[in-house]
Amino acid sequence: MTRFSFSLNATDGKARTGVISTPRGEIRTPAFMPVGTAATVKAMMPESVAATGADILLGNTYHLMLRPTAERIDAQGGLHRFMNWDKPILTDSGGFQVMSLASLRKLTEDGVTFKSHIDGSKHMLSPERSMEIQRLLGSDIVMCFDECPALPADRRRIEESMRLSMRWAQRSRDAFGDRPGYALFGIQQGGLEEDLRAESAAELTKIGFEGYAIGGLAVGEGQEAMFGCLDYAPDQLPQDKPRYLMGVGKPDDIVGAVKRGVDMMDCVLPSRSGRTGQAFTRHGVVNIKNARHADDPRPLDEDCTCPACRNYSRAYLHHVYRAQEMISGMLLTWHNLHYYQEIMAGMRGAIAEGRFDAWEAEFHAGRAEGDIPPL
Amino acid sequence: MTRFSFSLNATDGKARTGVISTPRGEIRTPAFMPVGTAATVKAMMPESVAATGADILLGNTYHLMLRPTAERIDAQGGLHRFMNWDKPILTDSGGFQVMSLASLRKLTEDGVTFKSHIDGSKHMLSPERSMEIQRLLGSDIVMCFDECPALPADRRRIEESMRLSMRWAQRSRDAFGDRPGYALFGIQQGGLEEDLRAESAAELTKIGFEGYAIGGLAVGEGQEAMFGCLDYAPDQLPQDKPRYLMGVGKPDDIVGAVKRGVDMMDCVLPSRSGRTGQAFTRHGVVNIKNARHADDPRPLDEDCTCPACRNYSRAYLHHVYRAQEMISGMLLTWHNLHYYQEIMAGMRGAIAEGRFDAWEAEFHAGRAEGDIPPL
Repeated sequence: MTRFSFSLNATDGKARTGVISTPRGEIRTPAFMPVGTAATVKAMMPESVAATGADILLGNTYHLMLRPTAERIDAQGGLHRFMNWDKPILTDSGGFQVMSLASLRKLTEDGVTFKSHIDGSKHMLSPERSMEIQRLLGSDIVMCFDECPALPADRRRIEESMRLSMRWAQRSRDAFGDRPGYALFGIQQGGLEEDLRAESAAELTKIGFEGYAIGGLAVGEGQEAMFGCLDYAPDQLPQDKPRYLMGVGKPDDIVGAVKRGVDMMDCVLPSRSGRTGQAFTRHGVVNIKNARHADDPRPLDEDCTCPACRNYSRAYLHHVYRAQEMISGMLLTWHNLHYYQEIMAGMRGAIAEGRFDAWEAEFHAGRAEGDIPPL
Repeated sequence: MTRFSFSLNATDGKARTGVISTPRGEIRTPAFMPVGTAATVKAMMPESVAATGADILLGNTYHLMLRPTAERIDAQGGLHRFMNWDKPILTDSGGFQVMSLASLRKLTEDGVTFKSHIDGSKHMLSPERSMEIQRLLGSDIVMCFDECPALPADRRRIEESMRLSMRWAQRSRDAFGDRPGYALFGIQQGGLEEDLRAESAAELTKIGFEGYAIGGLAVGEGQEAMFGCLDYAPDQLPQDKPRYLMGVGKPDDIVGAVKRGVDMMDCVLPSRSGRTGQAFTRHGVVNIKNARHADDPRPLDEDCTCPACRNYSRAYLHHVYRAQEMISGMLLTWHNLHYYQEIMAGMRGAIAEGRFDAWEAEFHAGRAEGDIPPL
């Protein structure tokens, strides 16, 4: 049986490319993970998600524990079988979404009690319960249960929260147990404070994990502050393990993170934007609802090979968006996920060939051009 | 170039099987046409619609003339190219939906003026304008512009309306012109009055069409009354042309119509029901929202080969319906359209082999069994 492992194939500056091996398949890094919150990547069939080039999905513990429940998914043979996705799945710990979605939260050293945003029912999450839920789901990459304060926050709040998360990281490690083929990732906290990030990284490294996430970013601090933190945070983590930046981001966030040594990312942006009529392209964002597209026979991106670009005009995409047809979200989500995976593939190739800077310059030049002029 | 033609291959009782040939491909009859109202079969990619076995789609003139407009679709190369469907398309005339959806309708001998249900803008439909719109759309099978009174209605109203529709049928024929490879279908009216249906059929036959529809049914009269009318209406129409029953129906409506000599049908039911959690199966209707499915690992129908049945449990379908995920409508619509096409293929095979009665008995026996018992 394949064990969980990570091998670095090449680096270019701080950017890295490699492969995470798991019993469910390989994950080429840098990797972008589409988000399948409630056991589906919204508006997509799983075969289509795989066709975009995704090697791994992210599932949300918070949503799944509330509906349909982890026990129910376990009884159905686990999340992979339930949602018809046989490649790796990473699940978050639930901690972040308890903070952003649930009501009546009560945080103690033990964990968090909260009320469901769906039906008001009462629930509890702790390191031990989060590990249990993620095991029931059958997640290949399990995340430590942590607490993540919104930024800006004062240093004292960030410090206390980070230290709590580090105690919870140890409890997560203990509760995870010995599960060959599965991985547990620690999550670095510490806000934008370099010394707290260093302390957090040292604590996590002492405990020992199969991978390390950079948590607590993309929570309102802005790209400049995030990149400032990423200028040192990845370097504080072990070189020989995957580094995962949680909840990032826009295409240029992703490129900037990879440049700074990040190996994995996830974000709802490509799928959520697809449902609201926003397409990401090599030439920036296209708002398909804009009237300029109503009579435009050209595809979103003439060089894109996704079904939305190969088979449909902007005029059609505009029409189905305006008519609120489901195919609008289906096609734009497909395009966005395809584009994101194309960025990842482009970066992997460029890093392997030692031409990341040139690739990055071309990426930014394409975006600076802006969308093609109206007809 | 292939011209439009119909050849009857076999009959069994009144049931018929054959092939309609068009430049865009063959339509095996009896045929069920999925409805692609606004240039999309809701929740489906067109490749998936084709994969269910559909040879032809129906588009709605009323919706398309309002948004994105027929002129716009024409400028984009026609409806086939616009919506990425290269097989035949039939469009209705717009008459039926003006009556059911538009407001401030004013009916004269010339045609109908009305206000759009989308934005209140004022529009006109007449036989000539309907022919123009359907030509701009590039429809392969064009329907005469007619008026269709809701049932029940008194005989005098039905008679006057039918005679108006017959005058409009002549104007539609005149306006359609000579278009090799394209077909114009007349529409029989006359409510549930056998002599009015006969008069209408005689008028239409005198004008001469490439096919004949039975209109004015499935408008509230109930299955028994509809079958009563279908006991004579198809026989009043020419034997050597396709007969199309508009807006029908449930699976047993379709089987009963084919038994009575109908060759083509269309209905929103399989797609609309798919979006509201209803699945049609060999054993009747399954309401996936029902709590009995929450822990059921079995597929909707163990013998069905559609993606929803091959790859997902009832538990999953129940979950994504409850969570209002788009994949719920995507999978159930796919299943329903697949099942409808399986009924059509079953009937075609049975008629060709002279065992329609046995097939029909098996169809009804399967439905009488009801859904599998809960676990």
